[in-house]
Amino acid sequence: MNNFTFTKLSYGVYVITSWAEGGRPTGCTANSAMQVTSSPATVAISINHDNFTNACIKNSGMFAINVLGENSSPAIIGNFGFKSGKDSDKFTEKPELRDFLPIVDGAIAYITCKVIDAMESETHTVFLGEVIGAEIIDENDTPMTYAYYHNVIKGKSPKNAPTYIEE
Amino acid sequence: MNNFTFTKLSYGVYVITSWAEGGRPTGCTANSAMQVTSSPATVAISINHDNFTNACIKNSGMFAINVLGENSSPAIIGNFGFKSGKDSDKFTEKPELRDFLPIVDGAIAYITCKVIDAMESETHTVFLGEVIGAEIIDENDTPMTYAYYHNVIKGKSPKNAPTYIEE
Repeated sequence: MNNFTFTKLSYGVYVITSWAEGGRPTGCTANSAMQVTSSPATVAISINHDNFTNACIKNSGMFAINVLGENSSPAIIGNFGFKSGKDSDKFTEKPELRDFLPIVDGAIAYITCKVIDAMESETHTVFLGEVIGAEIIDENDTPMTYAYYHNVIKGKSPKNAPTYIEE
Repeated sequence: MNNFTFTKLSYGVYVITSWAEGGRPTGCTANSAMQVTSSPATVAISINHDNFTNACIKNSGMFAINVLGENSSPAIIGNFGFKSGKDSDKFTEKPELRDFLPIVDGAIAYITCKVIDAMESETHTVFLGEVIGAEIIDENDTPMTYAYYHNVIKGKSPKNAPTYIEE
């Protein structure tokens, strides 16, 4: 098996947001998000068990997919991807809420979801979400692909990402 | 809800292959595939109930993700995306097999999987597959993204695709 084969799957770059206990907004970066059904609209995301956001989604039963664009600040990925929301407030300012979910400043689109099912693997949970709301914030920016993040921004995978390859 | 928000999620373009009863190779195009865990490697795909390949994956318990590249022939998408394997042989010639699964001629990489779990939504099944094998066939071609298929090849979504939008 050639582990680099997995780099041939194409993804976007997202911040998955939810609520920690006590009404504290949190989130983490993810590239594993896909639409499952169109009508009614459902989406699936994959989140590592070790991500604080995983427990927050389980407890709150809701999450939002914040789509990053090529012009979104790389600082968003640094903030949401490379530290834990358990120990730190990733939202330093009170976020905008859509359908009661925190939206990341700089996202080009968002999809808000209610968890309707979940499937466990050894390290990750695949959440199936029924879409509550979905809006485009910036029509002009191009959605950032994971390939763009790797090749142009020269970003790396956090260790908890499904796409992480040990070097 | 703005249904065009879903076009902001990024995908690749794949042919999911499996076996029909009687040892007949079949498959369908898909854009909803994502890696779920890295070690052991698992992937998730979403396949419409109406796709003949759905029942074939359920019956055989296995599938392969064939990754298409920007230089892969658009005829592959036409062949696997816009007719049903129930009524026709999508493989006109005996395909190459990898890990007992049919591989599409023209794919740039493949990931072969054993089904270990499944989650049902109203219209689609999300299959969780444990990866048996994964190899790159053509290192030089760039994986086709769904955006590339839409914008450059000017392709459309088949009606069974999660990303189908009624026009």
